[in-house]
Amino acid sequence: MREDRQNNEVRPIKIIPDYLVHPDGSVLIECGKTKVVVSVMIENKVPVFLRGKNKGWLSCEYSMLPGSTANRKVRDISKGKLDGRSSEISRLIGRSLRACIDLNKIGERTIWVDCDVLSADGGTRTTSITGAYIALEMAVKRYLDKEIFTENPLISKICAVSVGRVNGTRLVDLDFKEDSNAEVDLNLVMNDNFEIIEIQGTGEKGTFTQEELNEFIDDAKIGIKDIFRYFEIVENYI
Amino acid sequence: MREDRQNNEVRPIKIIPDYLVHPDGSVLIECGKTKVVVSVMIENKVPVFLRGKNKGWLSCEYSMLPGSTANRKVRDISKGKLDGRSSEISRLIGRSLRACIDLNKIGERTIWVDCDVLSADGGTRTTSITGAYIALEMAVKRYLDKEIFTENPLISKICAVSVGRVNGTRLVDLDFKEDSNAEVDLNLVMNDNFEIIEIQGTGEKGTFTQEELNEFIDDAKIGIKDIFRYFEIVENYI
Amino acid sequence: MREDRQNNEVRPIKIIPDYLVHPDGSVLIECGKTKVVVSVMIENKVPVFLRGKNKGWLSCEYSMLPGSTANRKVRDISKGKLDGRSSEISRLIGRSLRACIDLNKIGERTIWVDCDVLSADGGTRTTSITGAYIALEMAVKRYLDKEIFTENPLISKICAVSVGRVNGTRLVDLDFKEDSNAEVDLNLVMNDNFEIIEIQGTGEKGTFTQEELNEFIDDAKIGIKDIFRYFEIVENYI
Amino acid sequence: MREDRQNNEVRPIKIIPDYLVHPDGSVLIECGKTKVVVSVMIENKVPVFLRGKNKGWLSCEYSMLPGSTANRKVRDISKGKLDGRSSEISRLIGRSLRACIDLNKIGERTIWVDCDVLSADGGTRTTSITGAYIALEMAVKRYLDKEIFTENPLISKICAVSVGRVNGTRLVDLDFKEDSNAEVDLNLVMNDNFEIIEIQGTGEKGTFTQEELNEFIDDAKIGIKDIFRYFEIVENYI
Amino acid sequence: MREDRQNNEVRPIKIIPDYLVHPDGSVLIECGKTKVVVSVMIENKVPVFLRGKNKGWLSCEYSMLPGSTANRKVRDISKGKLDGRSSEISRLIGRSLRACIDLNKIGERTIWVDCDVLSADGGTRTTSITGAYIALEMAVKRYLDKEIFTENPLISKICAVSVGRVNGTRLVDLDFKEDSNAEVDLNLVMNDNFEIIEIQGTGEKGTFTQEELNEFIDDAKIGIKDIFRYFEIVENYI
Amino acid sequence: MREDRQNNEVRPIKIIPDYLVHPDGSVLIECGKTKVVVSVMIENKVPVFLRGKNKGWLSCEYSMLPGSTANRKVRDISKGKLDGRSSEISRLIGRSLRACIDLNKIGERTIWVDCDVLSADGGTRTTSITGAYIALEMAVKRYLDKEIFTENPLISKICAVSVGRVNGTRLVDLDFKEDSNAEVDLNLVMNDNFEIIEIQGTGEKGTFTQEELNEFIDDAKIGIKDIFRYFEIVENYI
Repeated sequence: MREDRQNNEVRPIKIIPDYLVHPDGSVLIECGKTKVVVSVMIENKVPVFLRGKNKGWLSCEYSMLPGSTANRKVRDISKGKLDGRSSEISRLIGRSLRACIDLNKIGERTIWVDCDVLSADGGTRTTSITGAYIALEMAVKRYLDKEIFTENPLISKICAVSVGRVNGTRLVDLDFKEDSNAEVDLNLVMNDNFEIIEIQGTGEKGTFTQEELNEFIDDAKIGIKDIFRYFEIVENYI
Repeated sequence: MREDRQNNEVRPIKIIPDYLVHPDGSVLIECGKTKVVVSVMIENKVPVFLRGKNKGWLSCEYSMLPGSTANRKVRDISKGKLDGRSSEISRLIGRSLRACIDLNKIGERTIWVDCDVLSADGGTRTTSITGAYIALEMAVKRYLDKEIFTENPLISKICAVSVGRVNGTRLVDLDFKEDSNAEVDLNLVMNDNFEIIEIQGTGEKGTFTQEELNEFIDDAKIGIKDIFRYFEIVENYI
Repeated sequence: MREDRQNNEVRPIKIIPDYLVHPDGSVLIECGKTKVVVSVMIENKVPVFLRGKNKGWLSCEYSMLPGSTANRKVRDISKGKLDGRSSEISRLIGRSLRACIDLNKIGERTIWVDCDVLSADGGTRTTSITGAYIALEMAVKRYLDKEIFTENPLISKICAVSVGRVNGTRLVDLDFKEDSNAEVDLNLVMNDNFEIIEIQGTGEKGTFTQEELNEFIDDAKIGIKDIFRYFEIVENYI
Repeated sequence: MREDRQNNEVRPIKIIPDYLVHPDGSVLIECGKTKVVVSVMIENKVPVFLRGKNKGWLSCEYSMLPGSTANRKVRDISKGKLDGRSSEISRLIGRSLRACIDLNKIGERTIWVDCDVLSADGGTRTTSITGAYIALEMAVKRYLDKEIFTENPLISKICAVSVGRVNGTRLVDLDFKEDSNAEVDLNLVMNDNFEIIEIQGTGEKGTFTQEELNEFIDDAKIGIKDIFRYFEIVENYI
Repeated sequence: MREDRQNNEVRPIKIIPDYLVHPDGSVLIECGKTKVVVSVMIENKVPVFLRGKNKGWLSCEYSMLPGSTANRKVRDISKGKLDGRSSEISRLIGRSLRACIDLNKIGERTIWVDCDVLSADGGTRTTSITGAYIALEMAVKRYLDKEIFTENPLISKICAVSVGRVNGTRLVDLDFKEDSNAEVDLNLVMNDNFEIIEIQGTGEKGTFTQEELNEFIDDAKIGIKDIFRYFEIVENYI
Repeated sequence: MREDRQNNEVRPIKIIPDYLVHPDGSVLIECGKTKVVVSVMIENKVPVFLRGKNKGWLSCEYSMLPGSTANRKVRDISKGKLDGRSSEISRLIGRSLRACIDLNKIGERTIWVDCDVLSADGGTRTTSITGAYIALEMAVKRYLDKEIFTENPLISKICAVSVGRVNGTRLVDLDFKEDSNAEVDLNLVMNDNFEIIEIQGTGEKGTFTQEELNEFIDDAKIGIKDIFRYFEIVENYI
């Protein structure tokens, strides 16, 4: 067992809804020492490939502040290129959120979701997905209230958790230290029916069998369940 | 008089010290609805022009999160260029902080100060300077404790406030709405002897005389005094 | 069943080893109408984070030629930014290859793997991984022959295959048309012990259960087995 | 007193109007050994934020040629990023010029002002502003002649001068050597009523009091007066 | 005489037409060990400077794959800038092809020609031009068949060859080793009337007289003639 | 015959040597209404590919100021990419200058030559080459005087001229209007023995025969001779 929690237990989550003044939906989400600000804003146009199709789009950008990491993270613009890891995570979050919303119901609009990591202690991508869903739900509620949307486009709730194998032990919701030592690292995005939205497992420092994969998923589901339980509390405040 | 404060009164300030896990000094500073995260980190090298001179450097970067503004602010890296306004403000903050620290006393090191605006409601550059000074003081204290620095390089405390003319009336610490309507806009950085570190006044929508300039400065000093009073409280917690 | 192959059957693979003059290892790999050129070259230095650790690195870049896609693909340099999808796939291929090589055995060197898609008809990332492994094996053989490497750093053979659900049917090794209509899309990288190196499954247009995931993997294994069988033939020519 | 001029005396100014063939207004302005080419051109469109508002814009770009400085100045495009100092100065010149023109009177057009420093010996930003105003006046005269403008949009004449404290002495219009040693550096843009358009004072190597600020401004006004006197001569040739 | 061919003899050429699935015209062209993939695609718009003129454009991009050269060629996007040499060659190929097509006959369309070097052993620019002409002819044939073009815009056939002076000897179609030692290097693009489309001769390591220039051209014509002879064979397959 | 000069006559040239304060060599060169500033500066390091070879390098950059052209030329940094034409011309000038200097005689240094076009009225590349040679000669003289160079590295004098066919007539040193209508455009760089350093001829709007090429060169030589005659006058002032 880990020092202060069970191997299959997620860290304490804290969500401050409506954290920012301007966005339609926003949260500050903390998962252990990881802190992410998520904002959701809408724009009345769509990417070129969707123009004239009476359909919307959802686009996500994930980024880390310079002070979020142990060594100062140089800004993308200073290096002149988008960080590869950030780009990969942005795409993951975007795909996951698009899986929980019917873009045919939002008109020719783009929903912009920005996840900016203030402090990184492992699990920034899963924390971002979880926070992004809440912020999206808040924004959708507001668009419905303002009659920008005429029907609810949300299909299901989603959240995400990581699971990994560290020194041969399976752990749920790894912090940075655990993650650095993980032989296998798996991120799972699920909806509230426990169906898989996205699964990404990698064994850069070690492989895993199909059997282990199933054990990882079983463990992850316990974490997912806990997070959805927390959702119910937060939703009272939206 | 303004709705909820005097014309020469600054907005309520709130500073959470040590807001982030990794940086040596960090704060979340709020000034009204403006929120800025500041982090201070150190690097064991200096820019090319200072190499081998046994002297350090302090560099600042100011940036706004996409969700900080009324219309989503597109990231610099997406546009492929550094925002001109951010660049100008980064340079202002850097100059101001370098005026309060003796860089001959920090060795061949670069102090990185990052000011990231979470929420913008006017006064983001002055709030950043004020927050950055506090975070810098915290970091210096830590470097002294760890004996990275052998003597205190800080020369004086500094803080900043804006003052402007709106519909013919002088106001201190303008919020976004006031700032948008200002005929004259002036930012003043001062040390705790009320000496000027940096003054920037612009009359894009109207000019001002030398006499008015002096009235602006007199008003600004009242705000500066209030902020320094607040410093005393915060410093108890550092 | 599909027109010209079983649902769990991979497309015909063709590999021309030593396709290029200069690289240490290179192949032209064709999988159906998908064509990828892979080259492997070595450089006598490592990224900053590895300097002085007596360890090597393997870095991969995936890119598509302008004429590889139905609509001309604008070059990254013309848009001034790295394509997000290419960046994500580069990272996937890099991770997968690093899982099959012991970087402690190659000295302070970087192995560069470049996968350039000449023609894209689905499965470019899996074809790239498969081709990249062969090219890597060729290059390693040469480095051993030239005594640049003193022991074989390869841990296991790897290859990759895609599997998806199209109109409710599970298909292995999807071509572009199938991929465009897939509700679920899963890419699996495995070693020759049928252990998982990397799994990426996404249900942007539909979710999937843990049970289905297992069916996908079972199907994928059949494709993986076929590809490894093909390896034996190619290796005679290396 | 300085070697060849009074402490409050500006360097000799030389302006060659209509220096370039293509622009509507252009000058080569020399202030001591500082040489700047300014061109003014018009474009029949406005930035996005002004579209459809029947209003124009004025945009300025300041840049230094590689051979203008003691050490060759690497071009922005070679470094892949806009020089921070150039960006700050471009914004200053733009604001100053916008303060002397009524943009409601020029239709949906953008006036482009380019200030390119051929040779830098201090005071490039103030020389640019002064030259830019003359070039702008020339261009406006031409647009009125050609009936592109139906009424004169110019509000007032403007010019700029620097003033600083070097070894405790106040000097007007500092050359590079003086500027490098200045404890305080102040740039002042004024109109011909001696009202302030923009003031920027910085004490990176030393602070200054409100009293000193007033002395600086008093001195600067003497320089400003001299420059405006020179304007009268030049304007005969426009 | 050279090892395996006459001094005025071109290397064996091999052209695989319709090498790619998606482009309207494409070839894999090999000239000795030099391999280039060329694709021709059409876009229904023209650059800004041609809009509304009922005229088309032809644009060319030349690039080298990382594995095409002896030392891995870093991608343009990784360096953040277009390679100067590639840019120069792209312009050369574009000019040459525009000389053999009447752009008034293709409507407001842009023909995109992409030349990507898989393997470089000298003569990549001349091989690209020769291959590009064949691919263009193929694409034009298809556009005529599909009635996208109503009349044949092609004016003449073109091809290109290099010629140089190596250790005082004139050689046609230099390979990389010869090219590296050339004192004079000349590239000639001609049509099938042996008129010059483009000539570029450079004597970075040695000059040449007008008389020598004529000898170079005489030699080049022999190579050009051989290449056109090869065209007749290929055209049977288009 | 042309309005104010013979068909084979170059425009009046004007060269102001030592035009800039900082560079080692500099000129303002005017050829008709074309104006170019050239500066030559030295740097004590060489590009990576020459390190440790006890040899120097010469690098050239050509660029046009925004106000130099009829329509304002957007800066490279604003478009985020180096202008293709500028890049091509930079390379041409660099090659030409490297042909007239023995880089083995300058030590491990880079000579930077910057050609910035203030005003463009045709012939900017040839004017740049001619001006660059003069500025280079000036700089070399200074390096010899200062004993930075121990022997004269210059091999020969060079200059450049354009020649073209306009409405069937051959013209030397085309101005912009002539150049825009040219069917054939040829630039010739020669040394003072009338040997060819570089020849670039293009027939985008019309081809030319080998016979015509010789006529072009004969004409160009007349212009070249006139320019070298002018050199003798200027050299008295260096």
